[in-house]
Amino acid sequence: MRSFGSDNHSGICPEILKAIADANADHALAYGDDEYTQRLTARIRTHFGETASPYLVFNGTGANMLCIDAMCRSHEAVVCAETAHINVDECGAPQRIVGCRLLTVDTPDGKLTPALVRTRLHGFGFQHHSQPRAISITQPTELGTCYTLDEIRALADLAHEYNMYLHIDGARLANAAATLNCSLRALTTDAGADCMSLGGTKNGLLMGECAVILNPELDNQLPYRRKQMAQLGSKMRYMAAQMDRYLQDDLWRRNAEHSNAMAQRLYQAVKDLPGIRIVYPVEANSVFVQLARPIWTKLQEDYFFYDWIEDDNIVRWMCSFDTTQEDIDLFVAKLQSLLKEQ
Amino acid sequence: MRSFGSDNHSGICPEILKAIADANADHALAYGDDEYTQRLTARIRTHFGETASPYLVFNGTGANMLCIDAMCRSHEAVVCAETAHINVDECGAPQRIVGCRLLTVDTPDGKLTPALVRTRLHGFGFQHHSQPRAISITQPTELGTCYTLDEIRALADLAHEYNMYLHIDGARLANAAATLNCSLRALTTDAGADCMSLGGTKNGLLMGECAVILNPELDNQLPYRRKQMAQLGSKMRYMAAQMDRYLQDDLWRRNAEHSNAMAQRLYQAVKDLPGIRIVYPVEANSVFVQLARPIWTKLQEDYFFYDWIEDDNIVRWMCSFDTTQEDIDLFVAKLQSLLKEQ
Amino acid sequence: MRSFGSDNHSGICPEILKAIADANADHALAYGDDEYTQRLTARIRTHFGETASPYLVFNGTGANMLCIDAMCRSHEAVVCAETAHINVDECGAPQRIVGCRLLTVDTPDGKLTPALVRTRLHGFGFQHHSQPRAISITQPTELGTCYTLDEIRALADLAHEYNMYLHIDGARLANAAATLNCSLRALTTDAGADCMSLGGTKNGLLMGECAVILNPELDNQLPYRRKQMAQLGSKMRYMAAQMDRYLQDDLWRRNAEHSNAMAQRLYQAVKDLPGIRIVYPVEANSVFVQLARPIWTKLQEDYFFYDWIEDDNIVRWMCSFDTTQEDIDLFVAKLQSLLKEQ
Amino acid sequence: MRSFGSDNHSGICPEILKAIADANADHALAYGDDEYTQRLTARIRTHFGETASPYLVFNGTGANMLCIDAMCRSHEAVVCAETAHINVDECGAPQRIVGCRLLTVDTPDGKLTPALVRTRLHGFGFQHHSQPRAISITQPTELGTCYTLDEIRALADLAHEYNMYLHIDGARLANAAATLNCSLRALTTDAGADCMSLGGTKNGLLMGECAVILNPELDNQLPYRRKQMAQLGSKMRYMAAQMDRYLQDDLWRRNAEHSNAMAQRLYQAVKDLPGIRIVYPVEANSVFVQLARPIWTKLQEDYFFYDWIEDDNIVRWMCSFDTTQEDIDLFVAKLQSLLKEQ
Repeated sequence: MRSFGSDNHSGICPEILKAIADANADHALAYGDDEYTQRLTARIRTHFGETASPYLVFNGTGANMLCIDAMCRSHEAVVCAETAHINVDECGAPQRIVGCRLLTVDTPDGKLTPALVRTRLHGFGFQHHSQPRAISITQPTELGTCYTLDEIRALADLAHEYNMYLHIDGARLANAAATLNCSLRALTTDAGADCMSLGGTKNGLLMGECAVILNPELDNQLPYRRKQMAQLGSKMRYMAAQMDRYLQDDLWRRNAEHSNAMAQRLYQAVKDLPGIRIVYPVEANSVFVQLARPIWTKLQEDYFFYDWIEDDNIVRWMCSFDTTQEDIDLFVAKLQSLLKEQ
Repeated sequence: MRSFGSDNHSGICPEILKAIADANADHALAYGDDEYTQRLTARIRTHFGETASPYLVFNGTGANMLCIDAMCRSHEAVVCAETAHINVDECGAPQRIVGCRLLTVDTPDGKLTPALVRTRLHGFGFQHHSQPRAISITQPTELGTCYTLDEIRALADLAHEYNMYLHIDGARLANAAATLNCSLRALTTDAGADCMSLGGTKNGLLMGECAVILNPELDNQLPYRRKQMAQLGSKMRYMAAQMDRYLQDDLWRRNAEHSNAMAQRLYQAVKDLPGIRIVYPVEANSVFVQLARPIWTKLQEDYFFYDWIEDDNIVRWMCSFDTTQEDIDLFVAKLQSLLKEQ
Repeated sequence: MRSFGSDNHSGICPEILKAIADANADHALAYGDDEYTQRLTARIRTHFGETASPYLVFNGTGANMLCIDAMCRSHEAVVCAETAHINVDECGAPQRIVGCRLLTVDTPDGKLTPALVRTRLHGFGFQHHSQPRAISITQPTELGTCYTLDEIRALADLAHEYNMYLHIDGARLANAAATLNCSLRALTTDAGADCMSLGGTKNGLLMGECAVILNPELDNQLPYRRKQMAQLGSKMRYMAAQMDRYLQDDLWRRNAEHSNAMAQRLYQAVKDLPGIRIVYPVEANSVFVQLARPIWTKLQEDYFFYDWIEDDNIVRWMCSFDTTQEDIDLFVAKLQSLLKEQ
Repeated sequence: MRSFGSDNHSGICPEILKAIADANADHALAYGDDEYTQRLTARIRTHFGETASPYLVFNGTGANMLCIDAMCRSHEAVVCAETAHINVDECGAPQRIVGCRLLTVDTPDGKLTPALVRTRLHGFGFQHHSQPRAISITQPTELGTCYTLDEIRALADLAHEYNMYLHIDGARLANAAATLNCSLRALTTDAGADCMSLGGTKNGLLMGECAVILNPELDNQLPYRRKQMAQLGSKMRYMAAQMDRYLQDDLWRRNAEHSNAMAQRLYQAVKDLPGIRIVYPVEANSVFVQLARPIWTKLQEDYFFYDWIEDDNIVRWMCSFDTTQEDIDLFVAKLQSLLKEQ
């Protein structure tokens, strides 16, 4: 089965599987008191700077919840795009786990701007209103677009001007760094982010995400908060070993460059086909396409992918670190034959 | 490093690591829509009966929370032993995640009895009081003791008499089944349990626990509840493959029998040593021992283990599926030499 | 001090104060087991039908929370207008107390329509999305507009078509019934509502709101839920006596008719003044006006009222049961003199 | 109807009713921005010192929740007596509203002691355990006993030694001050308390309790927290006017002295009757009595009161500010006649 449904339909990349097997020797302390987790902490600091503290958690929702919890109390609010994963795809986790409001903003392309954020920055000091306390952006966005470094910095500056924090949901951060050809640090710490959710699962790990606190002011009581949220792994060495290997020798970048390249290959092959409209700029590993329903529903007989906005016939095709050129070429060939048949 | 600290200091057993590697082929749908998870569901039903529904989650706290959430609303309460993991060792997860009360009972050996539970069964219908709605037992208990099948049945009957539910925290359920030489089903479904947390991590898995709903009345909206609690894994095939392999060919039993046997070997070797008092019956894979502080603190220089009740000089020694006879023998030899030196 | 800031700047109307004094005889059972509360229950049923169950609570937020809690679990969602009190003015109470999502919709005039609601009705059965479970409307709206009976019925039908519920935030329900010249029942039970928040505080009570459950399916465990939310009053007789008196002899209607009439008087007096734009239809007891900032800030030196959308120079003037014709006339005179001075 | 069931079966004392009526003039700003609330703040400071900040809320549970919320985050815990109102009688409000654990202690008489509290002070710094962060005592206790000033000071010192806070649930604080013949300040601020719930409803108010923050360190974001908990009253002038009058001219003390005196009259009249055992020292306005079931059930035909521990035939008789000598004498006469009949 070959899927263009999501990068979490992919497998474990061989280097990561080997890292798991290599960690499988002897006993190790649980809950992060092991040497693998220590090593990961050091590795995170080489990437994100000396103030960075990693908290391994189980999934992206867990990482986002720990970050939001670090930034906000329940009477406070997070400004985010209407399309943000925390808003749309976590079944109300922020509301239940943190108890806070999300202040959403419609965006043309999944990206917040200072002007868009400012529309939600009011009511400070008014006891009836949730107090804006954080801005959360997804990089790359859920729509496959990327913020530039300057765009992130501008949002960080805005946040700090209002005594707020900037969170980056980086479930696919590696893809953005690959697109922008920059370091992970340039995208986050150096751009002014206060904390982030660093993903690995979508880019070759079995499982394992990391809430990384960059602003030490936020690094408060988080071990208890993580535990109480049921996000503390017992055999943490296996999550730490994966994430450590991922961040070593540019494995994260190579995997991301590959999935990005596959998305570009797909984009180049389809963008000028008749009946195809590319919906958003292709700046990471996904391609959003508008095309006639009979075509995409037929294509789904051979390939799994999601309709994104069904009423508008917009679908999402996503590539992974283990998508092959052949996968792309066969997919495109099938699409072309369906378009011709029409 | 060899640890007697916890069975989650152990590694991944080879069969499980192989199952992970075997599952690492091709793409697979995420979030449980894959064939591995389908196969696990079937496997769970061969063990626990046709009404059983498994919900894979990340850790024991996650499994316990999903079960409690299935049984109780926030104004209801769970009767449990004072020593229960949900009470002591989850940093208040039931309070934060479900919002409910725990009605705790002191026990001599970690085991509830109908008489002990009845002391908390009052206030029904009184709007000022949290309404007792579930009984939660740990099998084997946190103190290494086991409920007999009749003891579980009596608690299930009591629960049902009061329109309540019985939950089993089975983080180490395999060890109890090994001790009692019975099937998993005899211990749970057939004894009247309504749901349970089925552990695997402590007995050879990399990671993966399962909330298993046995009473279909409770199987309501749980996919959303799991997601909202941040306990829905994306690449679920790898958790499902582990748990499926674990429940195949009696792997779970063999691993549990081994750790139990190692605990018995340890128990037999130390129980008559001078200055050693065995605190609880050794009915699973842990041995609780009272001994002079200078001895146990010196022993900790070579081996990791926890003091359990520090003021009383009670420590816990725990064996795993990968504890070896040699581990035990060297540990006992060291202990004996320390006792002699004294 | 005369205020056009809010109808909760008003006092207690004499009949209500007398009802409190009259209830102040002898001892009475607490927490609703008194005869005043019994009498209120009967009174509520004469107004809203035999299936209605009242739960007295302390304020509008409490009433809204109990209603939402009755309709939704935390993984579910309430569709409401972006301007809804539950969204904007309760500091995130739904998120903290119920833990659910609000699915907000922009509206031209504070009123939902089936077409607007349908834009949020998707994702049913998809475990990643909060499940739409209720529609909440405010009648009259926060913008002083009223739903017609047919408009409410259409929303109720839509809700029920999707297995959802309709909640009416009726903090000022009396004003709507006065405007529409209909019974309270016509607006609620007969229009298909499942539950509502029935206000009294803004229309002459000292304090006291009532969550009224109309659909008995929702009347489940609410005494415990109310208590756990800290909304159960001890000396409930005094809240019951107020609400009972309020619903007797058309007191609620007379008070509402008066405040509506005062708003109409104000509206008629200002609508054609130069530099004044009426922003929303005046269908209850408030008038939203756009006018030059120097005018309204000067006017605030003599009268308290809120700027509503400061950037657009929109302010709200609200009348109460105890606003007098003289209040209006003096206010208008002051406004006119300011407009002339300009 | 004359009740010995609870002091919240009592009415509104005349001075308070007059204060409500007196406040019923003109318009006033809502939500605490009125002059009555300003005056109350000043009054509170004359009683409790310049650092005191009052937050009016609707009931005792609301006051307790705001105090706990000010002291603890959800991963923290409050040490309290097993019999504490927050533990037993709030239907799990602390768990739902704050999400924290209560660490309960069995007590002989409802009173914590440093030695009893210390049994729960462990696990600091261990991420698996809720962190003890507050001690909460009820003064007078739910069993009608009083802490001495030295006993409170000792608990405050213990709390502060562990970087914890001391909360006093003072639903009946006036009764304790009357018993101890001391000021409210001596009992609270001067004894080292960090915050308290100051009751009025049980001692003559229509309704109104006050969370009073004594330690300014805790006075953080509470306006938002109160609002989000649905505890912010709109027409707050009426609550403020009541509480202000209550704290003026020793009204609070006179009412409390009266109810205490009535309890003493009752106690003196029954303590030596055959078949009667006084269960706890009578140090406030309640008398706990053990007597034969046929007697107390017959007495309940004429008088409302609660069985407290039904299995032990222990009942509670409670006096109010409006209990009369005649009430007591008739009650005792009835009891005596029942005892004789036996």
